[in-house]
Amino acid sequence: MVRPGGRSARVQASVHAAVRELEAEVGREALTVPLVATRAGVTPSTIYRRWGDLQELLSDVAVERLRPETAPEDKGSLRSDLEAWAEQFLEEMSAPTGRAYIRDALLGGPDGTNAGQCSAYAAEQIDVILDRAADREENAPDVETVLDRVVAPMMYRILFRPEGLDTAYARQLAVGLVGSNDR
Amino acid sequence: MVRPGGRSARVQASVHAAVRELEAEVGREALTVPLVATRAGVTPSTIYRRWGDLQELLSDVAVERLRPETAPEDKGSLRSDLEAWAEQFLEEMSAPTGRAYIRDALLGGPDGTNAGQCSAYAAEQIDVILDRAADREENAPDVETVLDRVVAPMMYRILFRPEGLDTAYARQLAVGLVGSNDR
Repeated sequence: MVRPGGRSARVQASVHAAVRELEAEVGREALTVPLVATRAGVTPSTIYRRWGDLQELLSDVAVERLRPETAPEDKGSLRSDLEAWAEQFLEEMSAPTGRAYIRDALLGGPDGTNAGQCSAYAAEQIDVILDRAADREENAPDVETVLDRVVAPMMYRILFRPEGLDTAYARQLAVGLVGSNDR
Repeated sequence: MVRPGGRSARVQASVHAAVRELEAEVGREALTVPLVATRAGVTPSTIYRRWGDLQELLSDVAVERLRPETAPEDKGSLRSDLEAWAEQFLEEMSAPTGRAYIRDALLGGPDGTNAGQCSAYAAEQIDVILDRAADREENAPDVETVLDRVVAPMMYRILFRPEGLDTAYARQLAVGLVGSNDR
């Protein structure tokens, strides 16, 4: 665990910031550990010790960028909340930057911690939507079912079958699952 | 296109074979283009010219290994065919070698051709199952629906959420989709 405000947290923040800046300035293909270290004001060995290699570092930065910044919008019903969330998720994840981050997250470490974190972010957002539905006394599926029926098909197609993917598809998945609960 | 029997096809076959042999002998972390070239009896520049880099070559080999060798077994009904196929798919893809091949396939080239080929293999197998169901005059979903409801959830969980994944889950996805068509 990284203690907020400690040296370890400061190193992480400055290294992550250096990666983001350099990605924007020189492009990600040109990134190297020494380049990131110089920009972050740390030694390359600090980076190697903490992250192992560049791929692992990029994976951590990717996960950080995939972290949702706000709770899903409350649009008044489970169906509209889930439709809107699925649409936004598909838009963000199927954009070139989204794809690059997912790829990086998947590549980080054979233990799959970073990929698991991406899925945890989606599950947290869906939990918020389902809690609201429960407050409204709407019938709602559980979070694992929403992952299977809405998130998984979008992610599968983004990674393996991207042709013709559009927001209508995202809405159709959401409505296909909860449409009949909300007339 | 690679003409079967031509020089290009021979080079491909010997380079792929060299990768498979060396993976087994020295492990995949130790693979390098010069090592593969020596074993395959070609020059490293032949490999660089054709594949670009090691990652691209490993991606091609992975897709080749993910190619199904036989048609799905005919078990007499859509439901049993799909259950058996999903179970086998999950077993193969969630094994360490399956995961490594999927990862390699996803990493091959930013155009995603190899990832698309993996999905095409699954779609072809499902087509065989659905054609048989049509011959038996069973009600059957279309192939895109089977991809969304059976293949996508398995692949999503293999990549992002592997904990507790088992063949009961694969069967449940198959039965959840076609169970009511086959009593």
